[in-house]
Amino acid sequence: MSETPDRKTGNMPAADAEATKRPMFDRVALIGLGLIGSSLAHVMRRERLAGHIAGATRSEATLKRAEELGLCDSYHLDAAEAVRDADLVFLNVPVGAMGKVAEHIAPALKPGAILTDVGSVKGAVIRDVAPHVPQGVHFIPGHPIAGTEQSGPDAGFPELFENRWCILVPLENTDERALARLTRFWQATGSNVETMTAEHHDLVLGITSHLPHLIAYNIVLTAADLEEVTESEVIKYSAGGFRDFTRLAASDPVMWRDVFLNNREAVLELLGRFMEDLHVLQRAIRWGDGEKLYELFKRSRRIRREIIEAGQDTPAPGFGRR
Amino acid sequence: MSETPDRKTGNMPAADAEATKRPMFDRVALIGLGLIGSSLAHVMRRERLAGHIAGATRSEATLKRAEELGLCDSYHLDAAEAVRDADLVFLNVPVGAMGKVAEHIAPALKPGAILTDVGSVKGAVIRDVAPHVPQGVHFIPGHPIAGTEQSGPDAGFPELFENRWCILVPLENTDERALARLTRFWQATGSNVETMTAEHHDLVLGITSHLPHLIAYNIVLTAADLEEVTESEVIKYSAGGFRDFTRLAASDPVMWRDVFLNNREAVLELLGRFMEDLHVLQRAIRWGDGEKLYELFKRSRRIRREIIEAGQDTPAPGFGRR
Repeated sequence: MSETPDRKTGNMPAADAEATKRPMFDRVALIGLGLIGSSLAHVMRRERLAGHIAGATRSEATLKRAEELGLCDSYHLDAAEAVRDADLVFLNVPVGAMGKVAEHIAPALKPGAILTDVGSVKGAVIRDVAPHVPQGVHFIPGHPIAGTEQSGPDAGFPELFENRWCILVPLENTDERALARLTRFWQATGSNVETMTAEHHDLVLGITSHLPHLIAYNIVLTAADLEEVTESEVIKYSAGGFRDFTRLAASDPVMWRDVFLNNREAVLELLGRFMEDLHVLQRAIRWGDGEKLYELFKRSRRIRREIIEAGQDTPAPGFGRR
Repeated sequence: MSETPDRKTGNMPAADAEATKRPMFDRVALIGLGLIGSSLAHVMRRERLAGHIAGATRSEATLKRAEELGLCDSYHLDAAEAVRDADLVFLNVPVGAMGKVAEHIAPALKPGAILTDVGSVKGAVIRDVAPHVPQGVHFIPGHPIAGTEQSGPDAGFPELFENRWCILVPLENTDERALARLTRFWQATGSNVETMTAEHHDLVLGITSHLPHLIAYNIVLTAADLEEVTESEVIKYSAGGFRDFTRLAASDPVMWRDVFLNNREAVLELLGRFMEDLHVLQRAIRWGDGEKLYELFKRSRRIRREIIEAGQDTPAPGFGRR
């Protein structure tokens, strides 16, 4: 708050020196202000990554809420207005909406701007978005592997990306400098950055994210449909393990519908393997093969340990929940 | 610490009055000092539920560790020694070991004692234990629906049972007073108590605990076996959802082997339903039926909300993990 220089050195206090430092991007446009969009707004503020944050949502209510929260510097119902003069544009909309949004904003994109996205599928986003990207705009698909089961502009927080991984998917002619700038941006949010092909991304995320969500949704549905066990029993005794699955199954249904529709091949392939493996367990149970069950169960402890060692989950029992 | 009476009233301070109150049971024997056994020891101390806690484990190393932790008042490698003169005996061993332990301790059980267990399956435990229970001993099977992925005497903590449910399974001739005493014991640990038949228990826990663990083990195995995705990628990007499953899949493999071997019918029935439901999702993905996916996904949000409202999970995003 103080603007008084230090009495001894005559220098401005560190915080004010920081304030006058040029932000990484002059204008950043966030198309979509859900969990990821609002978290980006928070961390950009904290790290002074943008001179101006332009936010756009299709829904008036969401935009109003974002304004109440003070997430951005300007608010737009028309995404094309938000991207005008922006140096960096984030598409934070469900995967199935990316193509339409890209088509709409394309004429307003500034030459030299970086256009990126945060979609959970990369092949389909490239297929839908790339044809609309004007010459001179750098389209670099991306995907921060971070999230919670909550959605909407209230769900965001600045630490969401901390120590998580962000995958960038450079295309054939991606400009090296643009890629380096976007990498620095994500690193400034606290993320680690990795690059890979869209095809590999969709398979890796298929197993680490899409299949787990599908399975979680499915078990919740199986439980809800039992005739012999009431829903209130399922809820009362959920601490036996079931409750863990309900978190993923509480995720945004539109976002996840679009993920499955747009990563069909990888998900079906992984689902096939999952079912094969499940048949092995089923058979071992049916035939009372305890040795096999023990062998298989013992293997999976190690994976948990490695995830914790890699800083990707808490070592606290029960996720440290209270 | 002080034993000085209050100067004005001459009464002992409240804490000391509490100390001289008679404990709920004179001697409690804990056969098995893993997560549940050690948590029982902790909460019995805190709530002064036992005049003497006798602990028994088959493993010398575990017993030594329990002694280092000061969990009990006496330590026994022979369970029969621990149960001698005990008013309340807990079997905290894997479901597959219950029968043998019961057979071994039976001659040492005191007439009028309550014998209970904490096994995750009730039908099989009754089948294996009941034939060994001497006349005059009150066998009341039980199951606290509480746990973490950790095991062993170090894993226990006194709050484990707080606001969780403990299911008691009274048998045909269960003594009402013994049932009431055991109910009060569990309530004193912070638990809510419910009674039901063994058959219903095994179905309810099949869906709320056994199937979720089986599914969690299975998806971890599917991920570990992929040729195209390295294990280090699975670990790096686990925050996309996969990590949630690894917690359950890090549970004790012996305990879970025994659960599946001993609740075979219910687990196979539920697994069949789970696979049927999964085929519906598979088909919707294959045929691009977004409407169906959206409808199904939307339903499961409500279940999560109800679990949180029932106090069975935290409302904090991501389980509040850090």
